[in-house]
Amino acid sequence: MKTGLFVVFEGGDGVGKTTQLERLAEAMRSAGREVVVTREPGGTQLGLHLRQLIMHGDHVAPRAEALLYAADRAHHVESVVKPALARGAVVLQDRFIDSSIVYQGGARGLGNEVERISRWATDGLLPDLTVVLDMAPDTSRMDRHLDRVERETVEHAEQIRQGFLFLAQRDPRRYAVIDAARPVGEVFHDVFAAARAALRRKREIISGAGTPIPPSPVTP
Amino acid sequence: MKTGLFVVFEGGDGVGKTTQLERLAEAMRSAGREVVVTREPGGTQLGLHLRQLIMHGDHVAPRAEALLYAADRAHHVESVVKPALARGAVVLQDRFIDSSIVYQGGARGLGNEVERISRWATDGLLPDLTVVLDMAPDTSRMDRHLDRVERETVEHAEQIRQGFLFLAQRDPRRYAVIDAARPVGEVFHDVFAAARAALRRKREIISGAGTPIPPSPVTP
Repeated sequence: MKTGLFVVFEGGDGVGKTTQLERLAEAMRSAGREVVVTREPGGTQLGLHLRQLIMHGDHVAPRAEALLYAADRAHHVESVVKPALARGAVVLQDRFIDSSIVYQGGARGLGNEVERISRWATDGLLPDLTVVLDMAPDTSRMDRHLDRVERETVEHAEQIRQGFLFLAQRDPRRYAVIDAARPVGEVFHDVFAAARAALRRKREIISGAGTPIPPSPVTP
Repeated sequence: MKTGLFVVFEGGDGVGKTTQLERLAEAMRSAGREVVVTREPGGTQLGLHLRQLIMHGDHVAPRAEALLYAADRAHHVESVVKPALARGAVVLQDRFIDSSIVYQGGARGLGNEVERISRWATDGLLPDLTVVLDMAPDTSRMDRHLDRVERETVEHAEQIRQGFLFLAQRDPRRYAVIDAARPVGEVFHDVFAAARAALRRKREIISGAGTPIPPSPVTP
């Protein structure tokens, strides 16, 4: 029986999450592991319906929207992630709780209640490793003079970035912050090393040689 | 401009909530008030869709179900209840947060997190008055020898009843516990008196003569 491992990829748009996630999936499969690649919403039938409701229905109140995403998360964790981990698979997920905190919590001022609700939704399941692909917005976008809208876009991207960095430094043992402004191969070298270290740590915890990392407290 | 009033009817199945709610609606309308009669889920288009998903979709994980109900609540409060109260209507609702606590929280062991999430969903809006229609299960059902299933049904009904009574005694100024094992007219006499008292109290609060009742803390 293999050791299940739950790895989440976080970061702003365009930092290369999909590319790195697929390369890690390939590497893990080559090493003989079962790999489940997933995302929210949409990982389940219920998720697809909810996405449909949020995207194409009437206006949905912001708190209602946050709760619909949390419901999808609860269902997805219960019916996809936990069963896969239980049979020893590597689960690679594109965005998770941190994206909800940073995008819904931060941007809409819904505070840390979004985090509390997400943790309740997942019944305490946290990733073994969260890979934050970090890239300064200016690296990719600031190569010419910016108008107001572009400037606001860059400022927003920087806020999002700082949100992820804050969550990573709050609980460094569960995170790998990786400079994503480098060539894909170099970035992947670090991603792979982080995943291997997480797997080693998890095996030690399971064998009794290592201590489980307690969840970080929700920031008040 | 009339003073908006938010009255919720709670209690087990078959205690007469619909009858009393309709009589109060009639009385309030006769007194010249706009009355909005509503319930969850189903008070909105989103609610109807969610109900459909919960009732007729695949199996939904218990926490996901609780979050879907909370999402419906957030949307319903935002798009139906608050606008009605803002224009001075009397809103009469069949079941609200207390039913979620008593049925989902109690029966499924999801604890008081259900209450926290509901309070967040409604952004702190609480009823001005919750009418608990109270009736001992044996009054209506214990008139013959019971088999095991019937006995469990009665025990469950008594647990539900005790749940509502607990919430009422925790915050007595917001509640009216009314003996519902009496003739409809007698019960309504008390319901109407409680609604009038709540309206008087609300007017005093708005005029500055009365003090708002702080929300009861969530029981740890």
